[in-house]
Amino acid sequence: MAQDKKKVEQITDMEVDFAKWYTDVCTKAELIDYTSVKGMFILRPYGYAIWENIQQELDSRLKATGHENVSLPMLIPESLLQKEKDHVEGFAPECAWVTCGGSEALEERLCVRPTSETLFCEHYAHIIHSWRDLPKLYNQWCSVLRWEKTTRPFLRHREFLWQEGHTMHATAEEAMEETVRMLEIYADVVENVLAMPVVRGRKTDKEKFSGAECTYTIECMMHDRKALQNGTSHYFGDGFARAFDITFTDQNNRQAYPFQTSWGITTRTIGGIIMTHGDNSGLILPPRIAPVQVVVLPIASHKEGVVEAAQAVEGTLRAAGIRTKCDLSDNSPGWKFAEHEMKGVPLRLELGPRDIEAGRCVLARRDTGEKITTPLTEVVETVKGLLDDIHHSMYARAKRNLEENTYACRTLAEVKEKMEAQGGFAKTMWCGDEACEVRMKEEAGVSSRCIPFAQEDLGDVCAVCGKHAEQMIYWGVAY
Amino acid sequence: MAQDKKKVEQITDMEVDFAKWYTDVCTKAELIDYTSVKGMFILRPYGYAIWENIQQELDSRLKATGHENVSLPMLIPESLLQKEKDHVEGFAPECAWVTCGGSEALEERLCVRPTSETLFCEHYAHIIHSWRDLPKLYNQWCSVLRWEKTTRPFLRHREFLWQEGHTMHATAEEAMEETVRMLEIYADVVENVLAMPVVRGRKTDKEKFSGAECTYTIECMMHDRKALQNGTSHYFGDGFARAFDITFTDQNNRQAYPFQTSWGITTRTIGGIIMTHGDNSGLILPPRIAPVQVVVLPIASHKEGVVEAAQAVEGTLRAAGIRTKCDLSDNSPGWKFAEHEMKGVPLRLELGPRDIEAGRCVLARRDTGEKITTPLTEVVETVKGLLDDIHHSMYARAKRNLEENTYACRTLAEVKEKMEAQGGFAKTMWCGDEACEVRMKEEAGVSSRCIPFAQEDLGDVCAVCGKHAEQMIYWGVAY
Repeated sequence: MAQDKKKVEQITDMEVDFAKWYTDVCTKAELIDYTSVKGMFILRPYGYAIWENIQQELDSRLKATGHENVSLPMLIPESLLQKEKDHVEGFAPECAWVTCGGSEALEERLCVRPTSETLFCEHYAHIIHSWRDLPKLYNQWCSVLRWEKTTRPFLRHREFLWQEGHTMHATAEEAMEETVRMLEIYADVVENVLAMPVVRGRKTDKEKFSGAECTYTIECMMHDRKALQNGTSHYFGDGFARAFDITFTDQNNRQAYPFQTSWGITTRTIGGIIMTHGDNSGLILPPRIAPVQVVVLPIASHKEGVVEAAQAVEGTLRAAGIRTKCDLSDNSPGWKFAEHEMKGVPLRLELGPRDIEAGRCVLARRDTGEKITTPLTEVVETVKGLLDDIHHSMYARAKRNLEENTYACRTLAEVKEKMEAQGGFAKTMWCGDEACEVRMKEEAGVSSRCIPFAQEDLGDVCAVCGKHAEQMIYWGVAY
Repeated sequence: MAQDKKKVEQITDMEVDFAKWYTDVCTKAELIDYTSVKGMFILRPYGYAIWENIQQELDSRLKATGHENVSLPMLIPESLLQKEKDHVEGFAPECAWVTCGGSEALEERLCVRPTSETLFCEHYAHIIHSWRDLPKLYNQWCSVLRWEKTTRPFLRHREFLWQEGHTMHATAEEAMEETVRMLEIYADVVENVLAMPVVRGRKTDKEKFSGAECTYTIECMMHDRKALQNGTSHYFGDGFARAFDITFTDQNNRQAYPFQTSWGITTRTIGGIIMTHGDNSGLILPPRIAPVQVVVLPIASHKEGVVEAAQAVEGTLRAAGIRTKCDLSDNSPGWKFAEHEMKGVPLRLELGPRDIEAGRCVLARRDTGEKITTPLTEVVETVKGLLDDIHHSMYARAKRNLEENTYACRTLAEVKEKMEAQGGFAKTMWCGDEACEVRMKEEAGVSSRCIPFAQEDLGDVCAVCGKHAEQMIYWGVAY
């Protein structure tokens, strides 16, 4: 018991030290463990179950839109990685290299994939010949390596789990449509499953993916008002196709290069869930991906019939497709409350002798603490309704945080002042010049988050240089 | 079209060259593609979909028996790998080593995991303290690297996909029970889902897993009468726990070492499916994991109402949970027949104008070629019944191959003679001496497959040395 108690020791208050609060939650909620290799983490069963649920939601949407899963090797020959110049420049500095296989030094060193555009292109060159072979809509679930200097649970691993979609199309228009379609699928999952509102937009050239013509992004705001990039979708034009000599015979019998996209979402999304929804008692999980949606706690479980009644409710909820767990451990009720709060279980169902006699149970919401009494005969409908309501409340709360901390600024000085006071997203007009973007970073300490699809008219003057500007951009401090 | 036709070009007859037939099927059925790294293969959508279906069948069984999925890093520090002496001796010769991260040489080189016992042990040392923490029943779906010299699609990759279960238990008995339980789960999936009969047994000390006290195996017989090891389960005792200093306080408040198991099944199983069931027209897929169970082919599809009727049948079958695809491509019927035969689709449903008029359709079995006419009103029941029947017929056919090519021998000379004439499995008594096992290998060219759980009384004399023998063993030529 003494051992177990550790788990529910007080965690750092988020107001005192948000970063410490965050890592406390990652470890105390048993999402993660550290390893002897810096920046490589273990996803423990509870953390991995969250990822499995996100996978399931996304994978079904990918399949419904015609995408097929494949598996490509994890190693890339250096010469293959070097075929597209911008791409290799972006990734080479953070590659991990295999130089020895068995007892022999390799003739050519192999990079552990940081991303797989080059491998997909090699494969596409083998299998794309005719317009009949297009589009190719492939996706891969795997892990990738990026040898980062600073690492942090979920947010920045040297190895992280993700999916990477790679598609090829007969026309630029089709590829561009795919790029936007996939961003919308990410936005759908993040908003409607994970209860995190997003800002959809395009990255600046400075911030786009190495080798892409353009990158779309969904940006989220965390509880501490910092930004989290949460899913990106890239349009490549035919740049890689030319570099890898991928051609097809079009319907007019002419040789042409296909147009390409790629898009990915990673386990850092779980970090986003923690920092969007959590509180000083720990995690608060969005009901639609919570590994346990309802924890059933028998009260005074030594009394006759209590355990049986609790198990019966568990069975009823499970049969209705609700992920339910009955906690029959010999821990004290107070300890159990704290543990399931720490783990962010959306609903706690309490059932004691008097409840059983009265044919009712008590449901406690993790997000608001509110308690609802419901007849046992209506428990399935009540729980379903509450899980939906919790989702919407969590989304609304996060949306308020986003809206209340997004503000228009006219000048760099104003961005700097408000950012220091409030954090969040500053929106300004921007001339499109990278020099202004760099200056904003240097002087106000913020990076460009995106040029949002939903443009607003904030005038026609760049907040940095004062020259003519036609687009609105978001700035923020990002994870 | 000319391009497409290649797919259904005649493949090599299996009687002429079984190895060539096998690789022809792997590529022509679009299961696999080669890459520029020797021994690393691409699982194409059709090949990967088979693996996803196997995963789903196995994963649900693992969860039903209390196992939890986790994700551990892919890199192992050399010092960690070296902690268990037998283990490192077995794996070091086929490790791939990362020696450089970013632009810097690493202080300690990191092995790309060939298997993850050492990583699990490092983690278990962090999280196992009390008898309350046991058992730990963890599983991981991932890929591993083994730097093999000779490689072959599915059967021997330098990188392959698998699951690896790693469990810790309070007692040796519990761990041993788990070892056997997991072998039985593999046998259940392989026999009842993949329609491949298995021989369950124990590996000899010579053939067991590096670091294990004992290894259980399921052995299958391929169409060419060679053996395929298809899933293994290992009991480690407390050897790794001692090496990694994993201890727990037992219920009597004493410090103790936990007992460990691991078990895995890999994508080589797909190679086994091909070589067990395939024929000279290509793949024959077991219905329970076939990505497409029924392909609907409209005949004379230019005639009014044919396409609509075909799509209606597709919809009916899909609604009943049957994986169905309607082929509306403009390829000729003959070409379509050949393609879906190559891909091993269990049932072909043909529907032409006269069928529609008569309210019927024709179902052709991939395994036997038999054609069945059924009223459209009964198509769901007929298809379900046929898919089940195909499973059982395929199992029975493979079982006959196994039984007809398994025979008892009294002497090494007899093993040699019969093995040269017939191949298959020779069963003999064996004294247990490794010298006899080595001599059998050298003189008869066969390795020990397993000491089967189902022992038979073939006398009490070792077939090699003639000394006293108490156990029966299987010999064969293995992939």
